[in-house]
Amino acid sequence: MSTCSSTEGQVIRCKAAVAWGPGKPLVIEEVEVAPPQAMEVRLKILFTSLCHTDVYFWEAKGQTPVFPRIFGHEAAGIVESVGEGVTELKPGDHVLPVFTGECKECRHCKSEESNMCDLLRINTDRGVMLNDGKSRFSINGKPIYHFVGTSTFSEYTVVHVGCVAKINPEAPLDKVCVLSCGISTGLGATLNVAKPTKGSTVAIFGLGAVGLAAAEGARIAGASRIIGVDLNSNRFEEAKKFGVTEFVNPKDYNKPVQEVLAEITDGGVDRSIECTGSINAMISAFECVHDGWGVAVLVGVPNKDDAFRTHPINVLNEKTLKGTFFGNYKPRTDLPSVVEKYMNKELELEKFITHEVPFSEINKAFEYMLKGEGLRCIIHMGA
Amino acid sequence: MSTCSSTEGQVIRCKAAVAWGPGKPLVIEEVEVAPPQAMEVRLKILFTSLCHTDVYFWEAKGQTPVFPRIFGHEAAGIVESVGEGVTELKPGDHVLPVFTGECKECRHCKSEESNMCDLLRINTDRGVMLNDGKSRFSINGKPIYHFVGTSTFSEYTVVHVGCVAKINPEAPLDKVCVLSCGISTGLGATLNVAKPTKGSTVAIFGLGAVGLAAAEGARIAGASRIIGVDLNSNRFEEAKKFGVTEFVNPKDYNKPVQEVLAEITDGGVDRSIECTGSINAMISAFECVHDGWGVAVLVGVPNKDDAFRTHPINVLNEKTLKGTFFGNYKPRTDLPSVVEKYMNKELELEKFITHEVPFSEINKAFEYMLKGEGLRCIIHMGA
Ligand SMILES: NC(=O)c1ccc[n+]([C@@H]2O[C@H](COP(=O)([O-])OP(=O)(O)OC[C@H]3O[C@@H](n4cnc5c(N)ncnc54)[C@H](O)[C@@H]3O)[C@@H](O)[C@H]2O)c1
Ligand SMILES: NC(=O)c1ccc[n+]([C@@H]2O[C@H](COP(=O)([O-])OP(=O)(O)OC[C@H]3O[C@@H](n4cnc5c(N)ncnc54)[C@H](O)[C@@H]3O)[C@@H](O)[C@H]2O)c1
Ligand SMILES: [Zn+2]
Ligand SMILES: [Zn+2]
Ligand SMILES: [Zn+2]
Ligand SMILES: [Zn+2]
Repeated sequence: MSTCSSTEGQVIRCKAAVAWGPGKPLVIEEVEVAPPQAMEVRLKILFTSLCHTDVYFWEAKGQTPVFPRIFGHEAAGIVESVGEGVTELKPGDHVLPVFTGECKECRHCKSEESNMCDLLRINTDRGVMLNDGKSRFSINGKPIYHFVGTSTFSEYTVVHVGCVAKINPEAPLDKVCVLSCGISTGLGATLNVAKPTKGSTVAIFGLGAVGLAAAEGARIAGASRIIGVDLNSNRFEEAKKFGVTEFVNPKDYNKPVQEVLAEITDGGVDRSIECTGSINAMISAFECVHDGWGVAVLVGVPNKDDAFRTHPINVLNEKTLKGTFFGNYKPRTDLPSVVEKYMNKELELEKFITHEVPFSEINKAFEYMLKGEGLRCIIHMGA
Repeated sequence: MSTCSSTEGQVIRCKAAVAWGPGKPLVIEEVEVAPPQAMEVRLKILFTSLCHTDVYFWEAKGQTPVFPRIFGHEAAGIVESVGEGVTELKPGDHVLPVFTGECKECRHCKSEESNMCDLLRINTDRGVMLNDGKSRFSINGKPIYHFVGTSTFSEYTVVHVGCVAKINPEAPLDKVCVLSCGISTGLGATLNVAKPTKGSTVAIFGLGAVGLAAAEGARIAGASRIIGVDLNSNRFEEAKKFGVTEFVNPKDYNKPVQEVLAEITDGGVDRSIECTGSINAMISAFECVHDGWGVAVLVGVPNKDDAFRTHPINVLNEKTLKGTFFGNYKPRTDLPSVVEKYMNKELELEKFITHEVPFSEINKAFEYMLKGEGLRCIIHMGA
C-alpha cells in the first residue's frame, strides 16, 4: 500500500458522516483527521455496517448526549499509519476495529476467562482518545467527537492499537466487517460461553442479528434442536436460514414461555441464549433451562432500572446463569480465528447482509434499522 | 459378617429413636424393621450424626408434618441383607447411606453434569419406600415413617440401593459418617463447582459445618486467601482451623458486604460460596465476585418466598451464578473417592467432630445444635 505512506504524519482531509445532534440525519462533511499518537493507529475504513448501538446513542434518549460525533463501530479497513510504540501493526495490514479492546497488560487481559480489559473496555460516554483526552477529528479546528473509540463512519479514523484486530489479508472486507460487533457477540455467546454439546437442545431468545448469530453458533456446534423465541413472528421465516428448527412466540400462550419450553423439551432446554435486552426474556431464558445441567447466557443490554429476579431454588437446582460481553472474544487474540471460520466456510456471513448502500446514502441504513428491515446494511466507503 | 446372615429375610427388632410429634424429644423405642424389598438394602447403622435438616423437619414449622417418624441421614453402617435385584452390594459391605440417590438410568444420572437423579432425588415429604409406598418400620403393626429415604436414627434401617455408597472397608466409620451430607456438600461446592485455581481468593458466606467444609475445599485447592463472612463473630476463631485467613462480619460495616469485599480484593473475589440459606447472603455472594471471571456458588436452602434479585448488568459483566445440590457429587459414583481423600490425609474430618454421645442420649445432639454449639455430634449406635 504505497499510497498510505505519503500521508503518514500528516493531517488527512477526508469525508465523514457527522451526527450534529440527537436523532438528526448524518451529514457527510469534510473533516480533518490528525495523525495517530502513541499506541494509536490511523485506519482507512473500506466498509462499515450499522448496529443498534449506533442508533441508540445517536437517538441519545436517556444518556448524556455527546455531539457533534462520528458514529460507527462495525467495520473493516487497512492500516494507513501507526503511532509511536506500535509494533504489532504496520501500514497495509488488514484489520477490524473493535469497540472494546485488549491491552494485554491488565488482570482481565492476563486472565484466560475474561475479555473485559480494564484500560480499553467499552466506554460510550467518552468522545476523546485516551492518550491526550482529545479528539483526532475536527472541522475548522473545532473537535468532532469519537464514539466507542472506533468512529468508523469516516474514510479515515484513529483507533487505539488495543482495539484493532489484524486479520487474514485474503478475507473479503465487505463481508468480515460484520464480525466487529453483533455477529461475533452472538456467535461467541454460544461457542465460548453456552458451549452446547452435539445433539443438544438450544433456545435462542430474540432473532435479531445477534440472536441469529447465536443460532449460527448452535448450528456449528451441532445442536439438534434450535428453538427460536421472539415476540415478532415475522422473524421466524428468516431464522430458518440460520438453523432455527422450531419457533415459539410467547404471545401465543397464556402461560410463561419458560413453561411452554419445558413442556416441549421434557423439562427444559440444555442451553439458552438471550439476545433481546428485555428483562422478561432474561428471566425466561434462565428459568427455561433444564435443572441439573442447563446453562443460560445473557447477551442483551438491559435498561438501567431492570432487576433480574428469580426464585433461588432455580439456582440450587443446578441451573447456571452466565453473561457475556462481545461473546467472550478477546479482540486481538481471538477475532482473527473467527475470520478464519468464515474463510474455511464453517461460518456463513452472507446471510446476515441484507442491504448495501454507498457512503453518501448512509442515512438509508438508519432507516432500514429503524423500520426493523433486514439484518445488516453494509456501507461502502469508497462508493 | 456371619451374624448378619442369620437375620436375612426376617423382621429385625431393634432400637430406634422415634419422633412422635413436632419438636417433641425423641423416644428410644423397640421397632420392627421389615426385610428389604426389590432394589432395597437393610443396613446396620453404627454411627450417625445430626444435621440441620433433621432438626428443621423435626420442628416441622411451615411444612406438612409427617409423624411418627425416624429422622437421621448422616451415617455409616454395614449391609445386613439385600433385596431382590441388588447385585452391587452384599452383606458385610461398609457403606454410607445418602438422602439423595443415583439410579444410574435417568437423564440426570447419565449426564456428566448433574447429580439430581429423577427417581431418587431428595423428597422430604415422603415417609415411605418407593417400591410399595409403605414403611419398613413399625411398632405393634403401626407404621413409623421414614425420612429422606435413610432414617439412620435406628440400629437397622432399609434404604434404596441407589442411595447407598459402598466405601473402603478400612475407613473408620465414626469419622466418615459425616460425609453423608453437609461436609460433602460444602467440599463439593468448592471442588466440583466453584473450582478455585491455586492462589485465588475465595469468600465463604456462613461458617457452619457446610461453610467450613467449603473452606476446607478452598484450602485443598490451594486458594491463597479464604475470606470467611458470618454475622456471628464467634464463628471466626474456629474457622481458622479450616484455612480461613480473614474474616468479615457484615454487621461491622454500614455498606453492603459485597462492597467491603470488593475493596479488600481489588474489585472482587475470584470465587464465592454461599452456605447460609439467607437470601441476602446469596445476593451478596453473587455480587462480590470479580467481573470477567468470578463464579458464585449457592448452597444454602432458601425460604419458599425468597426472591433472588440483582441488576442484570452484574451478569453481563461476566459474573457466573451457579447452584449445587450435595456438592454435585453423585452418591454412588463419587462418594467413595471422597472417603479416599480422608484416607490419604488430604481432607481432615476430625475437626468437624466436636461432640460424641451414646445413642441413648441422642436428644443431647439436638440440644447442641439448637444452641449453635459445635459442628457435628457423632451418635454411637452401639453405645
Ligand atoms: N453484550 C454485547 O457485547 C452485545 C453486543 C451487541 C449487541 N448486544 C445486545 O444484544 C441484543 C440484541 O441485539 P440485536 O442487534 O440482535 O437486536 P434486535 O433489536 O435486532 O433484535 C432483538 C429481537 O428480540 C426480540 N424481542 C424483544 N423482546 C423480546 C422478548 N421479551 N421475548 C422474545 N423476543 C423479544 C425482538 O422482537 C427482536 O426481534 C441487544 O440488547 C443489544 O444491545 C450486546
Ligand atoms: N444444597 C445442599 O445439598 C445442602 C446440604 C446440606 C446443607 N445445606 C444448606 O447449607 C446451609 C448451611 O448449612 P449449615 O449446616 O452449615 O448451617 P449453620 O446454621 O450451621 O451455619 C450457617 C451460618 O451462616 C451464618 N449466616 C446466616 N445468615 C448470614 C448472612 N446473611 N451473612 C453471613 N452469614 C450468615 C450463620 O451465622 C451461621 O454461622 C443451610 O442453608 C443448609 O440448609 C445444603
Ligand atoms: Zn454493535
Ligand atoms: Zn487489558
Ligand atoms: Zn437417576
Ligand atoms: Zn444434612
